[in-house]
Amino acid sequence: MTANISIVTLGVDDLPVSTRFYEGLGWVNTTASQDSVTFLQGHSVVLGLYGRSALAEDAEVENIPAGFRGVTLAINLPSRAAVDAFFNKALGTGASAQKQPQSVFWGGYSGYFADPDGHLWEVAHNPFFALNEVTGQLQLEAKS
Amino acid sequence: MTANISIVTLGVDDLPVSTRFYEGLGWVNTTASQDSVTFLQGHSVVLGLYGRSALAEDAEVENIPAGFRGVTLAINLPSRAAVDAFFNKALGTGASAQKQPQSVFWGGYSGYFADPDGHLWEVAHNPFFALNEVTGQLQLEAKS
Repeated sequence: MTANISIVTLGVDDLPVSTRFYEGLGWVNTTASQDSVTFLQGHSVVLGLYGRSALAEDAEVENIPAGFRGVTLAINLPSRAAVDAFFNKALGTGASAQKQPQSVFWGGYSGYFADPDGHLWEVAHNPFFALNEVTGQLQLEAKS
Repeated sequence: MTANISIVTLGVDDLPVSTRFYEGLGWVNTTASQDSVTFLQGHSVVLGLYGRSALAEDAEVENIPAGFRGVTLAINLPSRAAVDAFFNKALGTGASAQKQPQSVFWGGYSGYFADPDGHLWEVAHNPFFALNEVTGQLQLEAKS
């Protein structure tokens, strides 16, 4: 069970704004949340929101402004229509469009939005990747 | 199924080095990987590794050097001993210690390491968070 991510924590500037943003996208707030931190349960992972400077302090790193963070979070959906619908929902909830959903070179359909703090989310349909119909979880085949 | 993260993609400088690093931590390489991209299956999420500049290009953002990325990935483990063991395994696989595992203010035990590209992982035991014994998945209670 060590190959896992339990929590993805995003450093944010305004916790109530970011909490409402992710609740609007369907994440469920939990009793673990406190005034200074939000924990939102997803189907397979918890999303944490924490003040950006507090997060830097917790990791004992300097809070230097980020350029390109080199991290993207992807949600894979079962169809192009589902990508469009989710992308538009995100824009309606306060996201900025970074790259409109479009056909891409690897044979799928993908767009990017930025959350209120500029964290990048890809919304994608990949016809070559099977999703569990109940959980939505992506399960790839181990290389032999 | 929209409250989910299917893939966390990390921009990396040396794909073979980073692939070996995460394989060493127990992530399973998959048939979806190609020369330019690695997809590693975890228990509940896929970890993607992609060239940092290619990732910036894919999201249509400028590849400005990152300061503090404002993103941390946490793996929650069932005991302090499991935290120590996993942390030491990561150091043996090529991670840098960022914050030695220690008792922390919220009543748990936590440390941070940086992967070969500086992506921050927290390794934590939180006695207040229950983990599924089979999947290791964290499941928090919805706020009413």
